[in-house]
Amino acid sequence: MPELRKDPVTGRWVIIATERARRPMDFHREPVKIQGARLCPFCPGHELKTPPELLSFRDTGGANAPGWRVRVVPNKFPALRVEGQLDREGEGLYYKMNGIGAHEVIVESPVHESTLAELQEKNVEEVFWAFRERILDLRKDRRLRYILIFKNHGELAGASLEHTHSQLIALPVVPKRVQEELDGAKRHFDYRERCVFCDIVKHEARDMRRVVLETEHFLAITPYASRFAFETWIVPRRHESHFENAESSVMRNLAWVVRAAVRKMDRVLEWPAYNMVMHSSPVQEGPLEHYHWHIELIPKISKVAGFEWGTGFYINPTPPEEAADFLREAGLP
Amino acid sequence: MPELRKDPVTGRWVIIATERARRPMDFHREPVKIQGARLCPFCPGHELKTPPELLSFRDTGGANAPGWRVRVVPNKFPALRVEGQLDREGEGLYYKMNGIGAHEVIVESPVHESTLAELQEKNVEEVFWAFRERILDLRKDRRLRYILIFKNHGELAGASLEHTHSQLIALPVVPKRVQEELDGAKRHFDYRERCVFCDIVKHEARDMRRVVLETEHFLAITPYASRFAFETWIVPRRHESHFENAESSVMRNLAWVVRAAVRKMDRVLEWPAYNMVMHSSPVQEGPLEHYHWHIELIPKISKVAGFEWGTGFYINPTPPEEAADFLREAGLP
Repeated sequence: MPELRKDPVTGRWVIIATERARRPMDFHREPVKIQGARLCPFCPGHELKTPPELLSFRDTGGANAPGWRVRVVPNKFPALRVEGQLDREGEGLYYKMNGIGAHEVIVESPVHESTLAELQEKNVEEVFWAFRERILDLRKDRRLRYILIFKNHGELAGASLEHTHSQLIALPVVPKRVQEELDGAKRHFDYRERCVFCDIVKHEARDMRRVVLETEHFLAITPYASRFAFETWIVPRRHESHFENAESSVMRNLAWVVRAAVRKMDRVLEWPAYNMVMHSSPVQEGPLEHYHWHIELIPKISKVAGFEWGTGFYINPTPPEEAADFLREAGLP
Repeated sequence: MPELRKDPVTGRWVIIATERARRPMDFHREPVKIQGARLCPFCPGHELKTPPELLSFRDTGGANAPGWRVRVVPNKFPALRVEGQLDREGEGLYYKMNGIGAHEVIVESPVHESTLAELQEKNVEEVFWAFRERILDLRKDRRLRYILIFKNHGELAGASLEHTHSQLIALPVVPKRVQEELDGAKRHFDYRERCVFCDIVKHEARDMRRVVLETEHFLAITPYASRFAFETWIVPRRHESHFENAESSVMRNLAWVVRAAVRKMDRVLEWPAYNMVMHSSPVQEGPLEHYHWHIELIPKISKVAGFEWGTGFYINPTPPEEAADFLREAGLP
């Protein structure tokens, strides 16, 4: 059973994933790479290589048969599991709970060779609908307090399979980095009676120096204090604390803007590896006035070294205004 | 002039290093690699390839001549600079200050081919004395609130030159990750009237499951909530908030324990890239009862992917008790 352990100094939680336990020799081997579609567990016809599906959008066929357009399955090597009781246990100084939660994979397309940015807009929209449906289902389990959706694209970003996919992790705690955003946003709201993300959207739309893309419902910006070169945030213009509450018109527009932002990044940085994460509000909370869901897109083009680990302090070699210039001017291929 | 910018949501500071400004094409080139000693700016005889030295321990020769054993120079491409006034400036929502600070390089040995772990114990001790001397000098500048010393070993850990060296960055702010440790340690102290690190040392020395090495003055442990596989902390047994206040006997013992811990890691993980960071108290503060300096050693053997960036939540595939078993049992080569 995986464990969630709390650092006694900072209060940071860590998943100790005992079920994937790795001994020293395991780190020398490169992750098993599937070359091409023949052995890929995410390709149509190989549905039985994954655990049974949780959701699919399909043209034909029944569950776990080909004919799907988007497919969600449990992760075969989950960092957390749904089964069991949520037990908490202290041990002297230390505090842990068992690793209750969920770890799922969203296979974004049946086509092995396509990247997310190359998919049809309609297809990308269905990926976001799948995220939404999984959140609505998982939040019924009141033990699960936070659901994180993220995508690792390319080996440098941590992807071990090349077939385009995202992941979802549902957690019994609100993770520290999200809690910091929630707390900071709350302080801003208490002081100014406005959502800090709404303020950022207004400021950036007026200033324009850090705007990469504007659409009816979204602003894509390189944030003022970007941690990474070419870091891009996709922020809804209208206030909404929970992604899963977004309206249909917003969801449709989201597919367009995410695809366009990644395409611009591909063009400027020549198809880099990247991480994309969605930050939304804790799923058991009602609508929040002070927090605003958004997506963070981080190309993996330089290494994070000791300085950043030690301090939580980042050195970004590219001013966000310059990054935005390059991204804004890149056409959409 | 580099800028320090504050994220309006979380309060996290970022250095926007305009003097190293990188355009998209710069990221495609691999960092210029010095192959061998012939062109290395850190090798004896090449002293004029670095800015003039700030400190050296030497057998013969004057400043900036060969004959040194350890040498400290300003970073040629500094992320921060000592010159100028510390100006603060708001801009609507946003807040920045100019990048006042220092960025120095500690060349640990004249021998190009040696790693830190391969140096003589006496030599490693002098490296720590050099750290101490630079801190004592820099803290006279009252604008500098925090001094971080770190080492990137190997390209995967972000090192761009292979000649063994560490770096020092002096900052006009206390960085967020350190502030979190200070705050967490303060909460623990307020509640229990004991230093949390002292409590960890006591607990671990009794429990032994996570102890890698024990010496007269130090404990090397794999922390209970290790973020990374084989993460190791080196913690002084006796309470001391500031590294620069450590006694001579502690400094001597530190050289031995750091060298031994890295050698064990080299043996178990086959000479991995690693980051090493020293966490100490803010330099303008007097002795603190609640905080305890220590060193964190992190082998770079797996990639940090979207999940970790998005949440500040880590998945560690190797339980620290197992990592400690491997490290404890590895002999010292």
